[in-house]
Amino acid sequence: MKSFAVVLSGCGVYDGAEIHEATLTMLAIAREGASYQCFAPNINQHHVINHLDGKEMSEKRNVLVESARIARGDIKDLKEFKAADFDAIIFPGGFGAAKNLSTIAFDGANASVNGDVEKAVVAMKEAKKPIGALCISPAVIAKILTKVNVTIGTDKATIEVIEKIGAKHFETTHGDVVFDEENLVFTTPCYMLDAKITDIDDGANNIVDAMLKWME
Amino acid sequence: MKSFAVVLSGCGVYDGAEIHEATLTMLAIAREGASYQCFAPNINQHHVINHLDGKEMSEKRNVLVESARIARGDIKDLKEFKAADFDAIIFPGGFGAAKNLSTIAFDGANASVNGDVEKAVVAMKEAKKPIGALCISPAVIAKILTKVNVTIGTDKATIEVIEKIGAKHFETTHGDVVFDEENLVFTTPCYMLDAKITDIDDGANNIVDAMLKWME
Repeated sequence: MKSFAVVLSGCGVYDGAEIHEATLTMLAIAREGASYQCFAPNINQHHVINHLDGKEMSEKRNVLVESARIARGDIKDLKEFKAADFDAIIFPGGFGAAKNLSTIAFDGANASVNGDVEKAVVAMKEAKKPIGALCISPAVIAKILTKVNVTIGTDKATIEVIEKIGAKHFETTHGDVVFDEENLVFTTPCYMLDAKITDIDDGANNIVDAMLKWME
Repeated sequence: MKSFAVVLSGCGVYDGAEIHEATLTMLAIAREGASYQCFAPNINQHHVINHLDGKEMSEKRNVLVESARIARGDIKDLKEFKAADFDAIIFPGGFGAAKNLSTIAFDGANASVNGDVEKAVVAMKEAKKPIGALCISPAVIAKILTKVNVTIGTDKATIEVIEKIGAKHFETTHGDVVFDEENLVFTTPCYMLDAKITDIDDGANNIVDAMLKWME
């Protein structure tokens, strides 16, 4: 049975992991008979957004604690992640990837990346194991690996950031997966496009399926 | 196109709506070509649970604001719900149904039900439109309609509460749907059983499919 590490970045599209992308990634993995373990960095969120009105709230929330909501409590500190324990790693999207896992939402191509996230991605690349990323997360992978082929769909501002980093962007539509053979990086746009929840299901299925096919 | 109202109770299994059940209910509806609008009551959560360690946190969170995380901001106050606008209503589970939509988690058969939830369910029953409930939510429907046939799976303590209320419980396993023809109530156990995420997908698909078939 192939095992995936699923890295979450909070709980909610505007300040954490996108909930549909996270849930449907876990479903896609389980559907194919593979297993998953959720991880998240044990750090404070950059901020807390009221998802009803879009305004910042004067609260502090922890990325690992909030991610545990999506994982039903079954989640580990990303510090504990070991590449040897998993066959693949995958990052659902949501602004959490650009605000908590990295500072891409604020600093663009000059962003910094959380140390535990960087270590996990580098360790998987060195172990020659596949790395998956949905939605905005491919920008984080680009920031870590630099010379990599990715997609985030068609969003001009984000494509500019990715190309400034030195990565190559491929325009895609719903459900498409871009595969970088050299870096073993798989990416799909999901909610970076104006998507329906069924498109997210397609994207999650297609990327997990492509990763598993490569592993066979 | 048939339209569903999806009633959420927060965001996270231990103090709100169960995230997988909510997401997969929305996916099941969209997959069948129907539409949905999310709703939640605009009230404070009973409490906030740290989903990593299971302990209560000294915070206040609002059910509508937190539910908006699952709905990506596209959610309405349940006070605005009108039975005339929808073909069906459905309640995903999670402790939020038993702690926020009602007090069943604390008061069992003597629980009270949130006024907006009760109004919505009674209005749909009077309009002879189908009512769906997953996981623990059938206990809330039982508390409102009293003489109704439901399932929450096999959990003895909850079955006792449901029968004390005056409703009839049917034991079921993963993906089963109990249909009460007189009240047009559809129920399925989901995470009230020791379930995998693929079982939740089956349960959500089966209940939405049964509701749509009845509507045809």
